[in-house]
Amino acid sequence: MPLSSHQAHTVIDGAERKAREIGLPVVIAVLDAGAHLKAFRRMDGAVLASIDIALRKATTAVLFQANSEDVWEYCKPGAPAPGLELSNGGLAPFGGGIPLKGPDGQVIGALGVSGGSVAQDTDVAKAAFAAFQALTR
Amino acid sequence: MPLSSHQAHTVIDGAERKAREIGLPVVIAVLDAGAHLKAFRRMDGAVLASIDIALRKATTAVLFQANSEDVWEYCKPGAPAPGLELSNGGLAPFGGGIPLKGPDGQVIGALGVSGGSVAQDTDVAKAAFAAFQALTR
Amino acid sequence: MPLSSHQAHTVIDGAERKAREIGLPVVIAVLDAGAHLKAFRRMDGAVLASIDIALRKATTAVLFQANSEDVWEYCKPGAPAPGLELSNGGLAPFGGGIPLKGPDGQVIGALGVSGGSVAQDTDVAKAAFAAFQALTR
Amino acid sequence: MPLSSHQAHTVIDGAERKAREIGLPVVIAVLDAGAHLKAFRRMDGAVLASIDIALRKATTAVLFQANSEDVWEYCKPGAPAPGLELSNGGLAPFGGGIPLKGPDGQVIGALGVSGGSVAQDTDVAKAAFAAFQALTR
Repeated sequence: MPLSSHQAHTVIDGAERKAREIGLPVVIAVLDAGAHLKAFRRMDGAVLASIDIALRKATTAVLFQANSEDVWEYCKPGAPAPGLELSNGGLAPFGGGIPLKGPDGQVIGALGVSGGSVAQDTDVAKAAFAAFQALTR
Repeated sequence: MPLSSHQAHTVIDGAERKAREIGLPVVIAVLDAGAHLKAFRRMDGAVLASIDIALRKATTAVLFQANSEDVWEYCKPGAPAPGLELSNGGLAPFGGGIPLKGPDGQVIGALGVSGGSVAQDTDVAKAAFAAFQALTR
Repeated sequence: MPLSSHQAHTVIDGAERKAREIGLPVVIAVLDAGAHLKAFRRMDGAVLASIDIALRKATTAVLFQANSEDVWEYCKPGAPAPGLELSNGGLAPFGGGIPLKGPDGQVIGALGVSGGSVAQDTDVAKAAFAAFQALTR
Repeated sequence: MPLSSHQAHTVIDGAERKAREIGLPVVIAVLDAGAHLKAFRRMDGAVLASIDIALRKATTAVLFQANSEDVWEYCKPGAPAPGLELSNGGLAPFGGGIPLKGPDGQVIGALGVSGGSVAQDTDVAKAAFAAFQALTR
């Protein structure tokens, strides 16, 4: 089953709820398994830079089937894959991107959040992911 | 006043309502006055090609402050601006993109719809625009 | 079920068999449902230009869920979508690209062939498609 | 003699054999002396990120006529060519790319492997290279 519009909007609403709670306007992007845009929301007041960053975080998560920050372990100074962050059009290997999996464990998409500090973006992303998980439980 | 998230989602919901009515899955993109993405929805079943086309129609509409199809009058064979469609990263000078204006007549963004024939996309775009207009009345 | 490596290579072998029969070296590209490269072969003697063209034909077919030449009906002179061929990074709206469908009718990828005349490429593409169909029968 | 389709597929089959042995789905790309794609295979289950990375590793190897990881010696912190990795559209200066040479020692192409850790990719690349060498012995 491909990622549905209903699932994508549950992710976005989950992110916005958390973002409002902490008073932070964010951008939320949801991609499908092929890294194509499925849904997107830029909350009023979010900085323009976050459009590209949210998209890259989600892209990083879906292409590597991993949280965006985990990709940094491979390309940080001293790690074995210097320049990995330059692949795939430029990655965002820091917190805020999380892959979305179907009931069979297959990656069906990813979400990316940007707008505040990495810690804040990660919190909002986790809340969005929790909303997605609640759907399939 | 910049285009609000509330306005953007009214546009998208208006488009989806019409699209469902005619049984056509579409992509709807909403940009702000600076041609930056504000909101986006890809209905289940819409072809992937429509992501790029909806974005380009909205871009065409906001950059020229005109319906996307009106730009064709300037670049069609015999018209004075051949190749205009190659500017700005590639335009989509056919129906489905409509600028959005604030109460003072200033362009505050644009919508773009893609998914079916040009006539269908134009109908869906008009319904989305009507939903936007109803908000400000 | 996503397009398998086995299916992709059946497509490529089917194309090469036909291409050898007519004495034409071609490039064959196979993409998955998200337009990502799955398998590729450039026969000895094929012109370098065909790499990009085969990829674009397959991209056109998978993004529009249609044979590549059918997209031309929408953007040819006088048709309602002038400039459509500029979307999605540049289309190849002429024969040689065919979508591949799973048993449930869903598009799971596409093939693109380039190397000779459009008629020759279309023949090779059809032979490749027939080899794919024979697999699932 | 340019790299033949037969040689390219020997490389790919050699890589896949090793990859199966270690239970790792990988992407294998083979380029010719001009850095143009000759053959490509994405094994079932390989992450999408590896398409671009395998292509970049092979590109790095053929453009510099060196193993991809050797290029890092020129651009690592303190080395004399900072930013070298940004040249040529973005290099992948880490293990998995190996140049292919003809009997006269001329570089006729390169292979690139991506899918697992750098150490795993390097092992698979070496096995693919060994299969290529066995052909010409």
